[in-house]
Amino acid sequence: MRISFDVIRDELRRILLQEGFTPARAERCATLFAETSLDGVYSHGLNRFPRFVTMIRQGTIDVAAEPVCVEAFGVLERWDGRRGPGNLNAEIAMARTIELARTHGMGCVALRNTNHWMRGGTYGWQAARAGMIGICWTNTNQNLPPWGSREPRIGNNPLIMAVPRAAGAVVLDMALSQFSYGALASYRRQGRRLSVPGGYDAEGRLTDDPGAIEEAGRPLPIGYWKGSGLSILLDMIGALLAAGQPTHRIPNDPLQEAGLTQVFLAFDVSRLFPDGGVDALLDEIVAHLHASAPAEGVDRVYYPGERTLLTRRENRERGIPVDPDIWAAVQAL
Amino acid sequence: MRISFDVIRDELRRILLQEGFTPARAERCATLFAETSLDGVYSHGLNRFPRFVTMIRQGTIDVAAEPVCVEAFGVLERWDGRRGPGNLNAEIAMARTIELARTHGMGCVALRNTNHWMRGGTYGWQAARAGMIGICWTNTNQNLPPWGSREPRIGNNPLIMAVPRAAGAVVLDMALSQFSYGALASYRRQGRRLSVPGGYDAEGRLTDDPGAIEEAGRPLPIGYWKGSGLSILLDMIGALLAAGQPTHRIPNDPLQEAGLTQVFLAFDVSRLFPDGGVDALLDEIVAHLHASAPAEGVDRVYYPGERTLLTRRENRERGIPVDPDIWAAVQAL
Repeated sequence: MRISFDVIRDELRRILLQEGFTPARAERCATLFAETSLDGVYSHGLNRFPRFVTMIRQGTIDVAAEPVCVEAFGVLERWDGRRGPGNLNAEIAMARTIELARTHGMGCVALRNTNHWMRGGTYGWQAARAGMIGICWTNTNQNLPPWGSREPRIGNNPLIMAVPRAAGAVVLDMALSQFSYGALASYRRQGRRLSVPGGYDAEGRLTDDPGAIEEAGRPLPIGYWKGSGLSILLDMIGALLAAGQPTHRIPNDPLQEAGLTQVFLAFDVSRLFPDGGVDALLDEIVAHLHASAPAEGVDRVYYPGERTLLTRRENRERGIPVDPDIWAAVQAL
Repeated sequence: MRISFDVIRDELRRILLQEGFTPARAERCATLFAETSLDGVYSHGLNRFPRFVTMIRQGTIDVAAEPVCVEAFGVLERWDGRRGPGNLNAEIAMARTIELARTHGMGCVALRNTNHWMRGGTYGWQAARAGMIGICWTNTNQNLPPWGSREPRIGNNPLIMAVPRAAGAVVLDMALSQFSYGALASYRRQGRRLSVPGGYDAEGRLTDDPGAIEEAGRPLPIGYWKGSGLSILLDMIGALLAAGQPTHRIPNDPLQEAGLTQVFLAFDVSRLFPDGGVDALLDEIVAHLHASAPAEGVDRVYYPGERTLLTRRENRERGIPVDPDIWAAVQAL
């Protein structure tokens, strides 16, 4: 079944008001969830909303808490998220980063003590809409073994990079695991093998069997040792910039995952190219990618974010695909 | 055979003086090459030096060119490398980035029109030695197929992140290909399979056969579609920040690879933690990693850069392992 963006947003807003959000914050938070489903990232949109409400009701997320700037070093600021709703906190942090970049050419906000930001790409699109290059990342709880270990001790720390472009922003939104636990479960339920090796089984053999990876708790970092190292560095840099919690201090129970650390960077492209020319340069790069000879069984090459724009348009026109059970569960909240 | 650091550096300096470097620049450039071999990155140390000299003699590298600041936006500066020696240019760029970070808390230098920086990790170690968080990346010529293509149209754009730490800096130095062409060739010559799948053969099958990947020209980006996206974003962001050449405009002949674009970022940790505490936090993260249960056949988990420090100590004490043929070729220069 498909449901329109407006109907989903209004339903989520109703629930958030009921949970104690102010009207303005309920509107923004509901919009962010609905936009995430609109863009096809169903796992962190509507499908994630019931868990979000559970975490509010058990007190992990404080609906009234707003982030505050605790230290300012000119172009770089440290903010405390005070365990408020993670997507609102992150949107406010990126908005402040953009303000700093408008003033200084670039800006950075390091945010500690926040909650899961849901879809990280949201804040990349936000930067691009403002004409900014945006870079941001978050840490997570321990959900990946570091390279050389069988035990999850690092996070899959999603990393987002975005570039503004008139014909369609270029937005990369990637967790550092090859497949999320959600994706592994989805493949398993459909009885499918992964498209590429996604982790190790309990005996330490590389495998494309999603169930074996889940049982062993050994999903793969992207690029094996490389993604493991990147996760460690993003966690360390975030903890230093924000004076925030590193991954290993974040509770491992998904319902208790709180006190996260995030970093937001923005660069003001209009300052860098006062006479324009940005789109000509980016369009040239995109055209070069689009002209790539496709691999076997592939229609063509897409730039990062291009499919999101296609999905967004389709879901806007036809309604957003919704799991009837999840929609019923949300309506019952 | 092993040769001491000092003997290698002095020999390289002799040659650079002969090629027209000033004494001070010959000293720095030779030191950077020798330190790269000292740290065990042989491919971009002594072993790369003959190609570096070839590129000087054919005019691709201008030994006399020094980088200049062409635009300053406060905390962010654009520099022109003027096709000077890539490692000297990059060291100067990171030194200026560090200066900006001392003044503003953070700093950024975007460098265009430069040459191959040899080992990217060099500039991460440089930032860490100065007490800075350092992040930098470079683009390259087209050496990887973007995801969905069989044709190399993106770069393996090495990305470096570094964190200062009294007990040993944490430094990640990774190209975005799973294996470099140099590594593929080395595995093939030894008749070995890759440790993990490293690319596609000519029929588009994922393989650990290095020769098949070389023949097809289809090495794998880290994380498949993810590393491909990361390469595209790093290239775009670099080209925008530096107003520099994107990957597809860089000549594909390795001996003509010039006019690269690089980005350097630094954050001043001493400003962020005026009362100390950085080492306690980082040591806690490192101890948590070190306590990870090892995987099958692994002795223990290492943090990024840890093995480099071990190699550096060993090579300092015992001399640097050197290929006799390459050493003879260098001495004949």
